Amino acid sequence: MNVPQTIRWESGRLLLLDQRRLPGEIEYLDIETLEDAVEAIRTLAVRGAPAIGIAAAYAMVVALRHSPDMRADAESAGAALEAARPTAVNLRWAVRRMQRIAADTPSFEALLREASTIHEEDRALCRAIGEHGRDLIEPGHNLLTHCNAGSLAVSELGTATAPMYLAHADGVPFHVYVDETRPLLQGARLTAWELSRAGIDVTLICDNMAASLMAGGRVDLVIVGTDRVARNGDVANKIGTLSLAVLARHFRVPFYVACPASTYDADTATGADIEIEQRHPDEVRSSWSADVRAYNPAFDVTPAELVTGIITNRGIATAPLAENLALLMSA
Amino acid sequence: MNVPQTIRWESGRLLLLDQRRLPGEIEYLDIETLEDAVEAIRTLAVRGAPAIGIAAAYAMVVALRHSPDMRADAESAGAALEAARPTAVNLRWAVRRMQRIAADTPSFEALLREASTIHEEDRALCRAIGEHGRDLIEPGHNLLTHCNAGSLAVSELGTATAPMYLAHADGVPFHVYVDETRPLLQGARLTAWELSRAGIDVTLICDNMAASLMAGGRVDLVIVGTDRVARNGDVANKIGTLSLAVLARHFRVPFYVACPASTYDADTATGADIEIEQRHPDEVRSSWSADVRAYNPAFDVTPAELVTGIITNRGIATAPLAENLALLMSA
Repeated sequence: MNVPQTIRWESGRLLLLDQRRLPGEIEYLDIETLEDAVEAIRTLAVRGAPAIGIAAAYAMVVALRHSPDMRADAESAGAALEAARPTAVNLRWAVRRMQRIAADTPSFEALLREASTIHEEDRALCRAIGEHGRDLIEPGHNLLTHCNAGSLAVSELGTATAPMYLAHADGVPFHVYVDETRPLLQGARLTAWELSRAGIDVTLICDNMAASLMAGGRVDLVIVGTDRVARNGDVANKIGTLSLAVLARHFRVPFYVACPASTYDADTATGADIEIEQRHPDEVRSSWSADVRAYNPAFDVTPAELVTGIITNRGIATAPLAENLALLMSA
Repeated sequence: MNVPQTIRWESGRLLLLDQRRLPGEIEYLDIETLEDAVEAIRTLAVRGAPAIGIAAAYAMVVALRHSPDMRADAESAGAALEAARPTAVNLRWAVRRMQRIAADTPSFEALLREASTIHEEDRALCRAIGEHGRDLIEPGHNLLTHCNAGSLAVSELGTATAPMYLAHADGVPFHVYVDETRPLLQGARLTAWELSRAGIDVTLICDNMAASLMAGGRVDLVIVGTDRVARNGDVANKIGTLSLAVLARHFRVPFYVACPASTYDADTATGADIEIEQRHPDEVRSSWSADVRAYNPAFDVTPAELVTGIITNRGIATAPLAENLALLMSA
């Protein structure tokens, strides 16, 4: 895989690939304090639900390293990290794991071991997602993906991209349309870059072109990532995902979501319970746009009924999603 | 209406508002030759199907002004203008009207009179579209529009915007979401600007946010323009329109198209017969995007079955569209 690693822990330092500068520059941020980490997560220097979780785990190590009261400080540090991106369930999940260690075995070594374990687990999860999803991709298929649920968002193989990377490694010929993903253009900047760097055949499109491609029979399969899957199978993901899901249903294109089991949130009954992060309108407005009000939700919720299947490290859950997800998760 | 006129004929000169510079600068291009006009149309300095038609009519006056053989030169000048934007049926329609004058009564005065008539007719058509469509907008409604089928695209009231301008003039309180309309951002640059300048309450969104708004019950009515309506009611319009139509059907939001009768092309049987202009991939790629292949169709085709109604200057055609359009057009 010819893609730089998003998160590195080297010689006692946390280094985060600054994804705001891609694809022009490959530069790592040196995260020395909790505040550095919160800022990096809030401003999307590090992004993608699993990567945020891993970064937050290491950030807890950085934050608690010299703490006289790791247990108490783990509460406040965790709260600060969680507030940086409220939609990402992996962030909360990773923070809770680190808080448990801080409470039970409060030492630098134990914290670092736990963060490394979370990171290693993620690599293995991505590989398992890829193994379960690779056979969905047939020779000659045209895929469509949105935002970046790739290596950059996670670790190594990514989630939505893991089946692509493994199918590509197998020599399966296929092609991927990448939605540019306004307003922050993660598809144009990150996914198109990482897939083409890995040698996968890529075409960049504007978000509003997917319907036209599907109408022309030019999309065989949609695979996207997700920031949170509710108990009933509703899926929160980057704004624009719901649009693709509705279009895929209309044009009878299979619509798959890929994620590790940690993205399944049994505490959230349905998508209606997921708080949607509202971001600054200036991300939508630009120098060239009229000086008007703008609306900028970061995510939307795709109802379970529009999802063909959820590809997880434990297998693919298909309809009825609520039951099959619960079975997979309790297996 | 507090919006600059797109096309002006003043003291024997053709002036076109350079829409590439909006909303930052209000500047007019002085069209002195046929080549100036072709370039202005091709590079979208003037855009919107009816405005292109009016500009082409005046461009024929400019091109033929000193011609020793108006009839012959009208053929070549018309062909050059038509080639600049192949999808716009109004362009062809206006060019043919001018060619008929050049053939029948070849004089500068007759040509200018015909171009002025086309322009005046367009103003009246927009007003008639507005009259027929204004009652679709109820107090408190949230509208959604795409691209710019506004005053800037046409003359005076625009097409998709004509019902909005008249309802606003009546004091009906409503609000319009404007799709930014990638890649050339006509919604962000032009529609948001002209509507807000006229005092209409506007919110700019990215194209991929419409689904989320509709899912939340926040869109009551979609009105878009069109570059060509086929005999069966299929509608060619800016890329992304099909996406809105599918979403509107899924979320049970009325989806209306507004256009003058000249946009109805009885010679085109269905949308499949409409040639879709492919534009340069660099409009999709940017300085920040990966260096990959990009796809850039300028239009898509919305099947008649997804259209609630077509608002024309002769009235609103509803399902079955093919029959009702034919009736309206032959009335």
